[in-house]
Amino acid sequence: MATIGILGAGMMGSALAFPLADRGHAVRLVGTPLDQAIVDEVRQRGVHPKLTLALPPAITAHPHGDAAAVLAGVDLIALGVSSAGFDYACDVLAPIARADVPVFMITKGLAFDGEAVRTLPDLLHQRIPRIAAPVGIAGPCIAGELARRVPTCVVVAGRDGATNARIADLIRADYYHPFPTDDVVGAEVCAALKNAYAMGIAFAVGLHEKRGGAPGSIAMHNLESACFAQAVLEMRAIVARLGGRAETAAGLAGAGDLDVTTNGGRTGRFGRFLGMGLTRDEAVAAMEGATLECLEILAVMRRVEGAWIARGEARAGELPLLDHMIAVALDGAPVDLPIGRFFGGAPA
Amino acid sequence: MATIGILGAGMMGSALAFPLADRGHAVRLVGTPLDQAIVDEVRQRGVHPKLTLALPPAITAHPHGDAAAVLAGVDLIALGVSSAGFDYACDVLAPIARADVPVFMITKGLAFDGEAVRTLPDLLHQRIPRIAAPVGIAGPCIAGELARRVPTCVVVAGRDGATNARIADLIRADYYHPFPTDDVVGAEVCAALKNAYAMGIAFAVGLHEKRGGAPGSIAMHNLESACFAQAVLEMRAIVARLGGRAETAAGLAGAGDLDVTTNGGRTGRFGRFLGMGLTRDEAVAAMEGATLECLEILAVMRRVEGAWIARGEARAGELPLLDHMIAVALDGAPVDLPIGRFFGGAPA
Repeated sequence: MATIGILGAGMMGSALAFPLADRGHAVRLVGTPLDQAIVDEVRQRGVHPKLTLALPPAITAHPHGDAAAVLAGVDLIALGVSSAGFDYACDVLAPIARADVPVFMITKGLAFDGEAVRTLPDLLHQRIPRIAAPVGIAGPCIAGELARRVPTCVVVAGRDGATNARIADLIRADYYHPFPTDDVVGAEVCAALKNAYAMGIAFAVGLHEKRGGAPGSIAMHNLESACFAQAVLEMRAIVARLGGRAETAAGLAGAGDLDVTTNGGRTGRFGRFLGMGLTRDEAVAAMEGATLECLEILAVMRRVEGAWIARGEARAGELPLLDHMIAVALDGAPVDLPIGRFFGGAPA
Repeated sequence: MATIGILGAGMMGSALAFPLADRGHAVRLVGTPLDQAIVDEVRQRGVHPKLTLALPPAITAHPHGDAAAVLAGVDLIALGVSSAGFDYACDVLAPIARADVPVFMITKGLAFDGEAVRTLPDLLHQRIPRIAAPVGIAGPCIAGELARRVPTCVVVAGRDGATNARIADLIRADYYHPFPTDDVVGAEVCAALKNAYAMGIAFAVGLHEKRGGAPGSIAMHNLESACFAQAVLEMRAIVARLGGRAETAAGLAGAGDLDVTTNGGRTGRFGRFLGMGLTRDEAVAAMEGATLECLEILAVMRRVEGAWIARGEARAGELPLLDHMIAVALDGAPVDLPIGRFFGGAPA
């Protein structure tokens, strides 16, 4: 069995430690400077305060000051930081990265430099070339459920088949089923976009409440599911335009992760608030400081879409749900889903 | 505006009358012999007893004995019977069908004669050749929501583009957005399969309850969504094998309708009972006589898959979720989702 280091001791990084420990690995969970309280709690009481679970004994927690020393001796490194922590993670890894120690990541996001869109695995390789083929993990995986050993399936997306297979084999557990793929762009673009689209689907939940409706089998499920299908269609289009495979958006990293994100998750709550008629600022305030990856990815996609249109590579209005989400979440427009323009339709 | 006849006065046929009436059409809602109590109630009190809603005045209800007379004079005919009522509907239409009166249907199912799989629109044309290009409507559309004017999008799937466009234009309403497609096989196969796959996804809901879990944000959403993604993958494969377009399974008729069916709908309740550990017979009994289209489509798909394998066109085990649903719902096997074999995976 191996020794695996995880950088980032928040919900998702720590949840990932469970299948690794259950597989028989020694897991070194390393906090960022923001995780100090979590690391202290784990070291003192053995309990992760955000997961509200005791960690298996094979998982040891380490403060950020020890990161270089603790991660230098492992066989495999996982990045579990949030998207905002990506630069920090690169700084930690740069001096200790080794060509024979693969890196995989659950950190999600997209980078756009005005010319090219890069997934975080590709950006990591660009920043630290010794990490030859970083792998992204994507798929339906709510952290609180993974740590409670609820079964799921994920994709292991990287540019080197042998590395993908090696990582999939190391991280597989009874309840954690990794499937390798070489479509890094498809998997990572979907993983980033799903946070935004889950917000858009949840607009319908809020609209229902705004009209005085209660949760139940008669609500606005039709509208939610029409938005869900449009979201998958737009993810297919965006993935294809960025050089990935459209069908990846119909799989685990696309429809699968989108489905779970709409069923749980803070992004859906944010979208619900907006659908209920809260202003953007009121909705952000109501989230009480929760990280809203949807705003980050929408800001990136606004710039990306603008560049496509400026370069003549796309027409305005091709992605009506994305455009509406940008208008609502970034510009404060009211929710008014343009469903007559969905599915390529321009009704008479 | 037009006069439109709907054969079948159950939930779905009657719900369809709402956007048609709101569009300004005169709608003649014709019951089957099984709908007599509904027709009586509508005629006496103006209220549909299953939808628990008053019908707009533009909708008139008619008993089955008047079907031929009432439907003979309309501009457009809709079939709103259940799949079990398809033969009855053909008997009613055969003497009155006209080449210049298009027929569209929300009746769902697949027919297999041992050689070929046929969608119901194609079967209707085969039975009544004067109906040149029958159209199927598919997509996320819970009847109780449609009748309450919850917005949604559907596909209008037929083999003649002009007929599709004509029907889409006639049935479009503020809250009902039809999008034409020529992929009859894709749309209709997905519409039929979604009842079965919604059951399989709901297995996870039942498993969670079986373990003593309560509904909430931490449940078995990961497993549900992994099954959702596998369901879309298998629908893609089945559609392609039957001559449709795989991407249709990622759209309104596939992922969209599957999403809404797992969120509402009796099929999900049936799957939940099975996941909780009820035997097949106990689960059927607990459904108190509700029509279970999932059992019909699984019985068809067992024969279809058997024929594919016998003819060397498919390998056993290619559709692990379908096979498991057949084992559970038709043969009484316990629920034990084979997720390690999902996504083409055969883990070491």
